[in-house]
Amino acid sequence: MRRSLFLQSPAQSSSPAAPSPEALSRLLYPAHRDLRARAFELLREPVFRLRYNETVAMERSRTTARIARVRQAGLLRDTVSRANEAGSRRYDVLIDVLALLDHSLEIRFGVNLGLFCATIRRLGSEEQYTHWLPRIEDGRDVGCFALTELGHGSNVRGIQTTARYLPDVQQFEIHTPHDLAQKFWIGAAAETANVAVVFAQLTVDAVHHGIHIFIVPLRNKHDMSLCDGITIADCGPKAGLNGVDNGRIWFDRVRVPRENMLSSMSSVSPDGRYSSSFTSPDARFGAQLAALTGGRVGIAFNAIEIALLGLTIAIRYSAKRRAFAPKKGAEEVPLLFYTSQQRLLMVPLATAFVYAFCARDLREMYYKSITTGSIGKDVHSLSAGYKAMFSWFMQDTLQKAREACGGQGYRSENRIAPIKADRDVMLTFEGANGVMLQQVAKVLLAELGAAAKNGGTYAKDSVVEALNTPPPPFPSGSCNSSKKLDQTFIYAALWKREDKLVKQLGERYGRMVRHWNGSAFQAWNDCLSVAEAAATAHMHRRMYDAHLVHVKHASVADAASGEALRLCGRVWAANTIASDESFLRLGCISAAQATDVVEQIDDLCKKMTSISEALLKGVGFPDHLLAPIAVDFVAHNARAKL
Amino acid sequence: MRRSLFLQSPAQSSSPAAPSPEALSRLLYPAHRDLRARAFELLREPVFRLRYNETVAMERSRTTARIARVRQAGLLRDTVSRANEAGSRRYDVLIDVLALLDHSLEIRFGVNLGLFCATIRRLGSEEQYTHWLPRIEDGRDVGCFALTELGHGSNVRGIQTTARYLPDVQQFEIHTPHDLAQKFWIGAAAETANVAVVFAQLTVDAVHHGIHIFIVPLRNKHDMSLCDGITIADCGPKAGLNGVDNGRIWFDRVRVPRENMLSSMSSVSPDGRYSSSFTSPDARFGAQLAALTGGRVGIAFNAIEIALLGLTIAIRYSAKRRAFAPKKGAEEVPLLFYTSQQRLLMVPLATAFVYAFCARDLREMYYKSITTGSIGKDVHSLSAGYKAMFSWFMQDTLQKAREACGGQGYRSENRIAPIKADRDVMLTFEGANGVMLQQVAKVLLAELGAAAKNGGTYAKDSVVEALNTPPPPFPSGSCNSSKKLDQTFIYAALWKREDKLVKQLGERYGRMVRHWNGSAFQAWNDCLSVAEAAATAHMHRRMYDAHLVHVKHASVADAASGEALRLCGRVWAANTIASDESFLRLGCISAAQATDVVEQIDDLCKKMTSISEALLKGVGFPDHLLAPIAVDFVAHNARAKL
Ligand SMILES: Cc1cc2nc3c(=O)[nH]c(=O)nc-3n(C[C@H](O)[C@H](O)[C@H](O)COP(=O)(O)OP(=O)(O)OC[C@H]3O[C@@H](n4cnc5c(N)ncnc54)[C@H](O)[C@@H]3O)c2cc1C
Ligand SMILES: Cc1cc2nc3c(=O)[nH]c(=O)nc-3n(C[C@H](O)[C@H](O)[C@H](O)COP(=O)(O)OP(=O)(O)OC[C@H]3O[C@@H](n4cnc5c(N)ncnc54)[C@H](O)[C@@H]3O)c2cc1C
Repeated sequence: MRRSLFLQSPAQSSSPAAPSPEALSRLLYPAHRDLRARAFELLREPVFRLRYNETVAMERSRTTARIARVRQAGLLRDTVSRANEAGSRRYDVLIDVLALLDHSLEIRFGVNLGLFCATIRRLGSEEQYTHWLPRIEDGRDVGCFALTELGHGSNVRGIQTTARYLPDVQQFEIHTPHDLAQKFWIGAAAETANVAVVFAQLTVDAVHHGIHIFIVPLRNKHDMSLCDGITIADCGPKAGLNGVDNGRIWFDRVRVPRENMLSSMSSVSPDGRYSSSFTSPDARFGAQLAALTGGRVGIAFNAIEIALLGLTIAIRYSAKRRAFAPKKGAEEVPLLFYTSQQRLLMVPLATAFVYAFCARDLREMYYKSITTGSIGKDVHSLSAGYKAMFSWFMQDTLQKAREACGGQGYRSENRIAPIKADRDVMLTFEGANGVMLQQVAKVLLAELGAAAKNGGTYAKDSVVEALNTPPPPFPSGSCNSSKKLDQTFIYAALWKREDKLVKQLGERYGRMVRHWNGSAFQAWNDCLSVAEAAATAHMHRRMYDAHLVHVKHASVADAASGEALRLCGRVWAANTIASDESFLRLGCISAAQATDVVEQIDDLCKKMTSISEALLKGVGFPDHLLAPIAVDFVAHNARAKL
Repeated sequence: MRRSLFLQSPAQSSSPAAPSPEALSRLLYPAHRDLRARAFELLREPVFRLRYNETVAMERSRTTARIARVRQAGLLRDTVSRANEAGSRRYDVLIDVLALLDHSLEIRFGVNLGLFCATIRRLGSEEQYTHWLPRIEDGRDVGCFALTELGHGSNVRGIQTTARYLPDVQQFEIHTPHDLAQKFWIGAAAETANVAVVFAQLTVDAVHHGIHIFIVPLRNKHDMSLCDGITIADCGPKAGLNGVDNGRIWFDRVRVPRENMLSSMSSVSPDGRYSSSFTSPDARFGAQLAALTGGRVGIAFNAIEIALLGLTIAIRYSAKRRAFAPKKGAEEVPLLFYTSQQRLLMVPLATAFVYAFCARDLREMYYKSITTGSIGKDVHSLSAGYKAMFSWFMQDTLQKAREACGGQGYRSENRIAPIKADRDVMLTFEGANGVMLQQVAKVLLAELGAAAKNGGTYAKDSVVEALNTPPPPFPSGSCNSSKKLDQTFIYAALWKREDKLVKQLGERYGRMVRHWNGSAFQAWNDCLSVAEAAATAHMHRRMYDAHLVHVKHASVADAASGEALRLCGRVWAANTIASDESFLRLGCISAAQATDVVEQIDDLCKKMTSISEALLKGVGFPDHLLAPIAVDFVAHNARAKL
């Protein structure tokens, strides 16, 4: 990149110094750097070469070959079989790298070593998990996670597969009563898994006990033929992720031994007495979906890595690809000269840096929950909120990156477009994004309800505790703070919007409950718009809180990294404020302040552009995971190469 | 759809009567309804069955088979060979239907009967087009359009392929001087075309005359072997549109006869005298790209049809698919019950109805230009603006439709996701969307400059003439008009935003030109953000103008259709206002008015929901072009069907 080209703005103050890529890299990827490097090296091998133009069958068998190679290289050893935090950390570092190459590879591991194992680890007895985890890790068995049905996805509590206890034979009978109850979308079920954790409605002695989980063999391992009573069909071609064999399963009165119910928290005695350590079905159901929380944490994390991958490709190309000259005969300028291209790519780059550290915080919180064994409200709402917002951000960024590269962005070999297709499912699985934001909003509503009983003060450990303390008012008549886009201004704007929207949500909900004569279901439905807005505003304020901590932390490691991160926060904040009319409508900022913000974005993006090369080096994705246009698009397309 | 479910809002006033699908259909598709019906019927044949899971080679040969069948069915007869408006109309009606099935099919016709023929028709002599058009129509030859090069896409004026006149032999020598000058992306060049219109820099007797167009044979027809001096490579797999064989072409001093230069407006005499009826190279270049304008008009039109296709699938599914029950044991509600789902799908549905009629206006204007032979400023700026805004709208809508269907939206057979991948290129080809909006903004800047010389008044035939007349002020202190979201309020809000942004653009540009010591190139680069905003605001106001005319027109045909269309306009306007902070920041509306607008959207979307079935029936896409989830997702996925 030729710096001089990006630094010719009139209004511009000085650009920050470029951060040290090495320091940035250590901030972003602090642990297991050796394993990370080994994984990147492995991906140079021919079996991992990027390929396109394949049928579903070809993609599946290629993914299977890749899984075998990862296993053979020993990289999976001591990951999930450890059943502890250290193992999870190794596993995550490995998957983070594989995810950059191939979403299908990530998900084939994800349903097997992720969802299947995490479910058994969290909800099975010690005997159950010490039996299964090593067998899955070394590939003796392949597990899948069978929750969703044709009729029930977002509303998984409504699944209709049944499990009846038969005391005479001490077995459970798993059954699919009708077509809507067929398991649907089960990753690895169509061809590759031999065993599943199956979610089903348990009945013992004609009493219904709600959803419980059963280990059910699907295939006979010696020849992978289907077990008795199992029918499996293929979900067929998808928009992407075709290396994953998603399947549909019907159970025809399939019997499994009593020991196959996951029993750390609920169990059925041989003679048919049901017992559970949970006091409410709600609590039990929440615990049963714990593995999904892990999945959401992973999606939140990887969404940002993938956004950075797309941005690396697009920014490197934009620095080299030229279009239009300042005058006749002069050399054409690189795309990154254009303020529109800077905005298109630098706002997402800054945002990715703000979010990346939020995602890392969430992961740390989640690791703690592995040790303590329970997932707090905080992790629950953050994982739901980040999962939704980061995956939407990822798709939006990939789309921008694709368009920024013009026609080249549409070629498969340049990766951005096929990655987008592969990743689109992240907005849906492990919880549809819209439904996730509703969950965040429901937490807010509950906090509001609790506060109402407490003189309007939020509880100390509440996710909105910060709303108890209004930000300091600005010196009257002065817009300095917005002119400089300083921290107090940004925080106050985000805080006020959150505060107002949370209150609006509470007010509207109360009004609607009265209107609907107490029907919470109807009332909530008339709050969805403000609920989504409140959840988003809440998440933004929390991200900014986290960001400020990370700026401090980074500054200690490397002053320039701290400054760079601070710049990212300002770009993100400016864009956030300029993208939502509610800051103005709700009176959180004045029109003059909004003007200050909007008018700074170009300049901020220029500054970002000047350090973008260093930021991308800090991220450090190796060339073999990038694309021809990120390296040398002319040489790659030369006639001599035909 | 069960109406009762969508009509239970507190604040709600009465819903409009459902329009007559028949009347709506006649408004949307007034002409050649017989041909349209025949084309839909043809698509029932096996060769047109929707397929997924194919390699590039399979997709290409399937597309070729489909082309043959359309030709054989006689549907192409008397279209482009007529070289007149009547022929174009028939052609468009046919392609509009084929486009619903298969983007590749549309584009294979598009480069051949569209771009190739339109270029020869507009720029060739009568002899040239009477020779070529019938041969292309009946398939004796297949043409392609070779403009873009590896090094030059948006800046096509910079292409570097050369054409030198050799008076001794009365030939032109077409040459690719280096790899950046290879023709790139040429649709049909990789395998299927035997002839191209090639854009190249003409030199006659060492004098450079700028870009001219040459008919260049690529392949020998008897065996499709490459002609001497031609090298062709494949652009390879793409994110979609893989039925089109995009190719790269190098010319190695290829000779064509003097008669092969398109010569209606410029020619070279046998002895090498250059003459042209154009006074400036700018005017000539504009005329040369005329075929692209036709392409943009087509993209604008089809973007809306495709958005409606995605919406038809998602809305029909959402009316049937159920999730969550109001209370335990009660029946679950359809997705369309949720206000969030209504908003997700009804805002785009309303928008599509507003835009559909704008696109029809543009097409009519374009037909006129076929008769008059020249494309006015108005068609130029509208086609650029609509191309960009409608194709972005289409992708945004398909994404929403995909997400609205949850996991089912990710299955290929449900069409939305693969259509999205196929269509994404529409944001790039025939002019990258961002560059298109810049073209609109440049027209605005020019109008502003002309007005400055005219006491601040815009010219009578100017695209911003409406800005000469401010809308009437609201009665002071009253928000009634925003509460009712009436036409005066909407128009005033749109008008003010456009007026302010256009002025801001002019002001900023002036300031930047001074700052950059007169460099228009640098100055314009520092205006891109406000330029895009001004262009968007201008387009929105013009769309609304057009919409009001169409409401009147529709009301005459069918009162309920008029009412329905009026509702669509209000939903579109409310969403437009609520999506852009600049209405508030620039003082076009007050915070109280903004609140009125935002608070009405739910209610408006409920009303839309209640008439959505009738609206979709009016659009009338037949089931065989929809998807299993649009028909009966349970029966389709039954075990009995395995
Ligand atoms: C490729 C793929 C792989 C998968 N792998 C697995 C797997 O291995 N195991 C497994 O068990 N499952 C798996 N799933 C299923 C996945 O978890 C579900 O698709 C997801 O939970 C959404 O459910 P659904 O598809 O039924 O969508 P629906 O529940 O039908 O939702 C569709 C839309 O309606 C909206 N909606 C639903 N409820 C509400 C509401 N209350 N309020 C407002 N809007 C609402 C949603 O926002 C969504 O956009 C997979 C799915 C896919 C696509
Ligand atoms: C599938 C496909 C089929 C095609 N078919 C044909 C065909 O048959 N014949 C043919 O001749 N061509 C064809 N094209 C080429 C197409 O017209 C070009 O891709 C398009 O014009 C964009 O050019 P580009 O790809 O070089 O993008 P670039 O010019 O490199 O632009 C890339 C990005 O930079 C931005 N940018 C560029 N200039 C500026 C600026 N001045 N200010 C701000 N931003 C800027 C753009 O907005 C764009 O997003 C096809 C392309 C594709 C992908």
